[in-house]
Amino acid sequence: MSAIEQNRRFMHCPSFKEKMAESDQSKEIPAPPFHNDALPDPIKLTPFTGQLPCPAYEDLLDNRRSLRTYDAEKPLTQEQLSFLLWSAQGIQFTRGHSSLRPVPSGGARHPFETYVAVRFVSGIDPGLYHYTPQTNIGEKKAAIGRICDFDFENKITPMLVGQSWAAKAPVVLFYTCVPYRAEWRYVDMAHRVMLIDLGHLGQNVMLSAAALGLGSCCMAAYDQALCDEVLGLDGINEYTVYAISAGAAK
Amino acid sequence: MSAIEQNRRFMHCPSFKEKMAESDQSKEIPAPPFHNDALPDPIKLTPFTGQLPCPAYEDLLDNRRSLRTYDAEKPLTQEQLSFLLWSAQGIQFTRGHSSLRPVPSGGARHPFETYVAVRFVSGIDPGLYHYTPQTNIGEKKAAIGRICDFDFENKITPMLVGQSWAAKAPVVLFYTCVPYRAEWRYVDMAHRVMLIDLGHLGQNVMLSAAALGLGSCCMAAYDQALCDEVLGLDGINEYTVYAISAGAAK
Repeated sequence: MSAIEQNRRFMHCPSFKEKMAESDQSKEIPAPPFHNDALPDPIKLTPFTGQLPCPAYEDLLDNRRSLRTYDAEKPLTQEQLSFLLWSAQGIQFTRGHSSLRPVPSGGARHPFETYVAVRFVSGIDPGLYHYTPQTNIGEKKAAIGRICDFDFENKITPMLVGQSWAAKAPVVLFYTCVPYRAEWRYVDMAHRVMLIDLGHLGQNVMLSAAALGLGSCCMAAYDQALCDEVLGLDGINEYTVYAISAGAAK
Repeated sequence: MSAIEQNRRFMHCPSFKEKMAESDQSKEIPAPPFHNDALPDPIKLTPFTGQLPCPAYEDLLDNRRSLRTYDAEKPLTQEQLSFLLWSAQGIQFTRGHSSLRPVPSGGARHPFETYVAVRFVSGIDPGLYHYTPQTNIGEKKAAIGRICDFDFENKITPMLVGQSWAAKAPVVLFYTCVPYRAEWRYVDMAHRVMLIDLGHLGQNVMLSAAALGLGSCCMAAYDQALCDEVLGLDGINEYTVYAISAGAAK
């Protein structure tokens, strides 16, 4: 079978019921946590309050376009970053071993983590951060833990395979996948669903950027090995799956 | 390699640049059309005008949840159906061989088609329809062509592998993939990106349903062979990839 034929088949829906019967969930193995551990002393971002600059959903549909020209001089505010992070992956409430968020995820597994490469955010040192939604369950707030320094100017372009315009964005969000969270329930059927779920959260980031009067661009092309290395992932149990730049237009 | 290992690898980003160099696009083969042919005499749905019942984006983030209990007695209006269809796949403008829509798609390929199983829409006979965004480029309007009769009550449940609650929804949207539209540019790298893009449009359908005061539920589990057969697809050059129910809550 050619690679194209094989990949077309990957997009097909197999028999979920049979697969789920073989799952770790059906063997009553406890569910994995729905989040990675928080780093010590997370920084509480100033939450977004008040009215969004572009509050009307219909206007967002009309006006959102991918943005690739950022104003390098314009910082993102903490409030803006907080809203972007929350609107894609905030935890609104929990139910048993599941979390409910502003996007749906198959079986409410939410097998993603968010990393933030910060070039220019008001009151936040440049560097690499990890978003911990579990710090603010039920609150429209976001906290990020500092991982390490990050040479934004020199690292972003190779991480994003030459998309050098992204090096002028104030932040690039990297979404990663922790596949076992979904495999626990869906076994080898989980992966197709996780990619669809990733699109749900990507769309929210883009609409939220537009609502904040900013622009954004989703990137499915990136250097897998380099991104995983920089984010400190093993590439097997957690790996990069999406990158989204956001900021003010030039 | 186990199926899980193989599927985890499918989610990784390969080297796009090398792949794109082998593509039909790079061989200067003309781009395929960005839409399937329209059926004769498409029905122009009454367009949605005026204010959305829940217009504020932030409220949609706060309140959207998957809905599985529909009021079987309550029809969808044409205006509501029109808005749902447009907000996910309407064509806002075209640029060469690409279309721009309310969701982004890798390389602006938009490799999807929309089919509508109608149980109860005001002024529209029950049946199976095909949405033709090319009929209304640049307009916030939708037209649907009638394919055939459709036994909603008896067909929806097996098509959705026993999710019988969906048989009470006034409509179920079926999204299909026409893979060559994206393979033309991305070869065998297209498929991972198409699944992510599918999530973008699914999120818009869900937010739009909430904005209309309705509920919706995305279903990644369905009977592939049966859905393809009912929708009249060959399962190779076009196949079902997502189903979304929408309607008023009970």
